[in-house]
Amino acid sequence: MDGKSSSETRGKPIRCRAAVCRKPGEPLVIEEIMVAPPMAREVRIRVICTSLCQSDITFWKLKDFPAIFPRILGHEAIGVVESVGEDVDEVTEGDTVIPIFLSDCGECGDCNSKKSNLCSKFPFKVSPWMPRYETSRFTDLKGEVLYHFLSVSSFTEYTVVDIAHVTKIDSSIPPNRACLLSCGVSTGFGAAWRTANVETGSTVAIFGLGSIGLAVAEGARLCGATKIIGVDVNPNKFEIGKKFGVTDFVNAGDCGNKSVTQMVNEITGGGADYCFECVGLPSLVQEAYACCRKGWGKAIVLGVAKPGSQVNLSSYDVLHSGKTLMGSLFGGLKAKTDIPILIKRYLDKELQLDKFVTHEVKFDDINKAFDLLIEGQSLRCVIWMDK
Amino acid sequence: MDGKSSSETRGKPIRCRAAVCRKPGEPLVIEEIMVAPPMAREVRIRVICTSLCQSDITFWKLKDFPAIFPRILGHEAIGVVESVGEDVDEVTEGDTVIPIFLSDCGECGDCNSKKSNLCSKFPFKVSPWMPRYETSRFTDLKGEVLYHFLSVSSFTEYTVVDIAHVTKIDSSIPPNRACLLSCGVSTGFGAAWRTANVETGSTVAIFGLGSIGLAVAEGARLCGATKIIGVDVNPNKFEIGKKFGVTDFVNAGDCGNKSVTQMVNEITGGGADYCFECVGLPSLVQEAYACCRKGWGKAIVLGVAKPGSQVNLSSYDVLHSGKTLMGSLFGGLKAKTDIPILIKRYLDKELQLDKFVTHEVKFDDINKAFDLLIEGQSLRCVIWMDK
Ligand SMILES: [Zn+2]
Ligand SMILES: [Zn+2]
Ligand SMILES: [Zn+2]
Ligand SMILES: [Zn+2]
Repeated sequence: MDGKSSSETRGKPIRCRAAVCRKPGEPLVIEEIMVAPPMAREVRIRVICTSLCQSDITFWKLKDFPAIFPRILGHEAIGVVESVGEDVDEVTEGDTVIPIFLSDCGECGDCNSKKSNLCSKFPFKVSPWMPRYETSRFTDLKGEVLYHFLSVSSFTEYTVVDIAHVTKIDSSIPPNRACLLSCGVSTGFGAAWRTANVETGSTVAIFGLGSIGLAVAEGARLCGATKIIGVDVNPNKFEIGKKFGVTDFVNAGDCGNKSVTQMVNEITGGGADYCFECVGLPSLVQEAYACCRKGWGKAIVLGVAKPGSQVNLSSYDVLHSGKTLMGSLFGGLKAKTDIPILIKRYLDKELQLDKFVTHEVKFDDINKAFDLLIEGQSLRCVIWMDK
Repeated sequence: MDGKSSSETRGKPIRCRAAVCRKPGEPLVIEEIMVAPPMAREVRIRVICTSLCQSDITFWKLKDFPAIFPRILGHEAIGVVESVGEDVDEVTEGDTVIPIFLSDCGECGDCNSKKSNLCSKFPFKVSPWMPRYETSRFTDLKGEVLYHFLSVSSFTEYTVVDIAHVTKIDSSIPPNRACLLSCGVSTGFGAAWRTANVETGSTVAIFGLGSIGLAVAEGARLCGATKIIGVDVNPNKFEIGKKFGVTDFVNAGDCGNKSVTQMVNEITGGGADYCFECVGLPSLVQEAYACCRKGWGKAIVLGVAKPGSQVNLSSYDVLHSGKTLMGSLFGGLKAKTDIPILIKRYLDKELQLDKFVTHEVKFDDINKAFDLLIEGQSLRCVIWMDK
């Protein structure tokens, strides 16, 4: 079903189409499912479009816990509120909203502190359930439960999201731009803007020029960084990177007789003020740390590493280098206050969202979006639900 | 020789007494040595008193590189300028000065930046030489070279120190208080004050309540921390800690059926805002990191670990915890501007230096100072050169 008025659907289960992941690594199957009405503090959303993020691929391929099947993946999206459960004042039917994997409950100490974006009421976890009740709103037509993903599950025409994970936005931004702010671009942009707070005139090195890394470059560019060094094994990334402000490139697969650290040291005259790890490799975190300017450099980790991974730093360096190691989840952004700022910066033609969208497909072709990202052909592929 | 006027000694070698470490772990031997005149940008100092720091013990015991013998140890001291080499304008004969192991050259990018206290012209290293010329000013009476230590070497009646390592101070502070600011107390105090910038009302956990840890407590107390938790395996440390503002204690050797992390979480309601590791054990750095408040906690490393040690952090925690790991060398202080502030705070009866001085001995009894610190009986033992 597609865009019926809320008066017909409110309070009732909705039958609609979803791309279900039934087994790890197998193509998603578009099938009809039932989406229960929202419970108290929940919102049922008609998804307009969704885009594919690396984490969807990771959890699509993963065989072991916290992977679980059958599951509805997807966590970058935009939609319209179809109906709301009890005690939802923040949004109403017809509002344009972005679901976000990270909670911004507005009630806990963390959400009320300027120092943290990590809600302690609904802490981040890769749960198969809705965050507030630990139950699912999805069933297939045989009545079997379908699991949620990252509190969003956007590969469906309708989804249910807790109000703590919903941000109301200005509907004048095109949906195939807004959806990027739901995860990837915000994560990278925010890491430069909020977590690192990159200063005008500073130097930045970015390890891994995928979408997240390019979004870091975009953030660093708008913060006024004068040198933005891309570090990647794929030399083609320099051309793409230039569009987002990358000024220098280090081919990590071929530095001649020099190390990446030497290269970054030479370009920056002693190390970058901020080094961002966007891949999820502990060895790369260590390299990012090594490339930081002694005395004040900051290494900021954005990449999601394999479960059980460890970052090993020399005790000597930790004590004597004056460097800082920190992580950045969702770019340190508080969704409900910061996403509207990013949208304004897009509408003001500062933040270049357009360049991230390299492909668009209709819902039936969702598996093509997977292929494109896996093959490294796409930055962001937008999947339109009604096309 | 002892306090002759500079007109008699200026420009000439001085014959005086020094406590020389000839072999690792063996008692120091007081013998007569020759101290060459200062070269350009160097200062020859008559040491008034010196105190013993844990790093002296470490390098007294150490058999391998960067240990080297015969050496004149000692790096916490106060003295009077006997004479200066060429191109020294900053101090003159008769000035009261503190030598500092960390350079503050005033010329390099780091010394001129507010963000760093790690001089890049004379970077910290455990060298046997004077920093500017890589030579020694000490010989024994047979003409054999005696090595320097940490650019200070204060276990001698006269020493030569590079001007980058000399801070001129107000002579109204008693010498047996001022010498503590040369290393240990400044390192701890500065870590809370400058590196962490502890805020009023925040919570602090300190791992290891030796002199450095107690100085962190003193710094946190003066910064207005409301909870200052001492963590130590020796329960007697709580009573000492209370004098420096420690409000709570966790006996790391006996937490009942709880872990140290659980204890700190309970006392602080979710983790301390700032956790200071003051021992030099990688496992304790990891525990300090674990005890940080999720969302914004900072783990600050002060302890000197064994060469080759590594700090291992879970990649998951680095990305998802919102915590920061950083080191603090000499408390993040810039010697020439910050030491005078600490002296003022002592003279204003804020900073409690007196309580750190538990013992005082004459120079001939310097080995007793070693025994007291090794046995854990002293915080700081002041060694008077002329008594
Ligand atoms: Zn919250
Ligand atoms: Zn994502
Ligand atoms: Zn310098
Ligand atoms: Zn020391």
